[in-house]
Amino acid sequence: MGGDHGPESVVPAALRFLGERQDRRLILVGREEAIRAYLPGSARSDERIEIRHASEEVGMDELPSKALRGKKDSSMRVAIDLVKQGEADACVSAGNTGALMATARFVLKTLPHIDRPAIITAIPALKGQTHMLDLGANVDCSAEHLFQFAVMGSELVRAVQDVRSPRVGLLNIGAEEIKGNDQVRAAHELLVASSLNYVGYVEGDDIYIGDVDVVVSDGFVGNVALKASEGVAKLIAQMLKRRFKRTLLSRVSGLLALPVLRGFRDEVDPRRYNGASLLGLRGIVIKSHGGADAVAFEHALRIADQEVRSRVIARIEREVENHLGEARALLAGPARVSA
Amino acid sequence: MGGDHGPESVVPAALRFLGERQDRRLILVGREEAIRAYLPGSARSDERIEIRHASEEVGMDELPSKALRGKKDSSMRVAIDLVKQGEADACVSAGNTGALMATARFVLKTLPHIDRPAIITAIPALKGQTHMLDLGANVDCSAEHLFQFAVMGSELVRAVQDVRSPRVGLLNIGAEEIKGNDQVRAAHELLVASSLNYVGYVEGDDIYIGDVDVVVSDGFVGNVALKASEGVAKLIAQMLKRRFKRTLLSRVSGLLALPVLRGFRDEVDPRRYNGASLLGLRGIVIKSHGGADAVAFEHALRIADQEVRSRVIARIEREVENHLGEARALLAGPARVSA
Repeated sequence: MGGDHGPESVVPAALRFLGERQDRRLILVGREEAIRAYLPGSARSDERIEIRHASEEVGMDELPSKALRGKKDSSMRVAIDLVKQGEADACVSAGNTGALMATARFVLKTLPHIDRPAIITAIPALKGQTHMLDLGANVDCSAEHLFQFAVMGSELVRAVQDVRSPRVGLLNIGAEEIKGNDQVRAAHELLVASSLNYVGYVEGDDIYIGDVDVVVSDGFVGNVALKASEGVAKLIAQMLKRRFKRTLLSRVSGLLALPVLRGFRDEVDPRRYNGASLLGLRGIVIKSHGGADAVAFEHALRIADQEVRSRVIARIEREVENHLGEARALLAGPARVSA
Repeated sequence: MGGDHGPESVVPAALRFLGERQDRRLILVGREEAIRAYLPGSARSDERIEIRHASEEVGMDELPSKALRGKKDSSMRVAIDLVKQGEADACVSAGNTGALMATARFVLKTLPHIDRPAIITAIPALKGQTHMLDLGANVDCSAEHLFQFAVMGSELVRAVQDVRSPRVGLLNIGAEEIKGNDQVRAAHELLVASSLNYVGYVEGDDIYIGDVDVVVSDGFVGNVALKASEGVAKLIAQMLKRRFKRTLLSRVSGLLALPVLRGFRDEVDPRRYNGASLLGLRGIVIKSHGGADAVAFEHALRIADQEVRSRVIARIEREVENHLGEARALLAGPARVSA
């Protein structure tokens, strides 16, 4: 197990998860000794927990290609192999994102008709939540890639959120005469002509409103949008803290407002949103934030569980088959592209 | 005058501005009658105020090309013509961004060696503020464009903020093995080899930390980052409001915390950051937010004033000349590109 904290947060997360979900089993992959050190006596006889020793670890800054070639017995690789072999239904890792994506793609392969996997996560919004992809796996995306992301994101939301017809938006900017770049405009054409519930272009602020269920963009734009958002949230938290600490009076008012401020903090707690799915693979792989504590990592485990139970992979595979037929017909016959 | 409010917010903003800056003059461009309606009697004899009638207006949703060709007597066009003719030192508009950019570019032209103007604005950060460009004028940018933006942004900050050697960062993502796309990586090479104070790649959250003075990106990414940030800020404000209104107790604690919350609101008030510069033109053009009220529009006027006083255009012209020599030498001789 990787991430910044390793078994120190993963093992307690596993125990919390099993405490709530009685009929699940977990295979803890990593250095056996290190894992045992965090397992309380009571848990050692729990038949739902299995330890699978892996002798290596992928460093958080290690080059993905190096990890992939050089570390055949890393906890990451062993965990993904378990999914490939059908021993596990999903893999959850707090390790190096690039290495996780490269290894998962190499071992599991992408689904038929999917060129590239994408990273998707739920984001809090004024009305519920929004799912956004890609968040950094693909820096340059063609219109077809963006279309594939839309199909996968839509089906994920349909599966795990029980939304009958998820509203899909394509991220764009409003300033230009002919909006967006070539890829985005071509993806728009594909989406307009598809049977997805495509609502059209959305802008950066729409992510946090919640009038669409899925926001599609390339991984460069998606990653910057997400990181910028995190930056603003931290800035606001810091500024509020500073102001409440400024004078005796403001300190007192801060103490009195503590229940409200704490409730708010819990509501936007990023741990409650921890767990991004690597979508488009022949298996479920969830990326937890590297700095995840037990609460956050448990949430990532729940997301994996949810995707297993809702049979996300099979559903996406079927939907991709349906929709990519549409797209291919469109791309073949230019006269059929609607505006 | 355009924007959502027209003279209703622009005229009071003009009066506020002149109240603070005794030695400035303003030419108010638009429908004379409409402007006069908002001018109090006391201001009508003020020699620092001149009204220039313009019979047309560019709609907020009008196509830039149509506005440019069809409305030769729009307030926007007349105001930019005044800059071209040397009658005004700067133009400030709350109108349609695309039309403003297209008209300004057509009338004023770009500076020598500048291919495309970019939109730049100051953004609040934990440590002071960050300037970011491009915010939406250019969706696809080559490495050279990004380099030009870096030179212009750096010189703007040096001029208006009196920072001797502004730290410049290039917006990128951290997830990929070989970071970023081709353009960003090539721009990185140009920046590393330049004499700018280039600190390297930054990510979305760095915008709000303030360890760099200038963040450079293409207009698609910059626009999405800015809009997403606005979206998060609004979401947080709404959530806090909801929570403080939830129960009698929380309402009371909210009332007691009001001075702190108001102080905070004023600190992050977007009106205090209103006014984006169209950089790279042979003249100063400031874009105010379309929904700007008098306070916000006055801030945009102050930005224009600051740029006039610090002779931003001449300074940028000189710096561009210096730095683009560097870039051209680099692009000509591949052996000289450092890593």
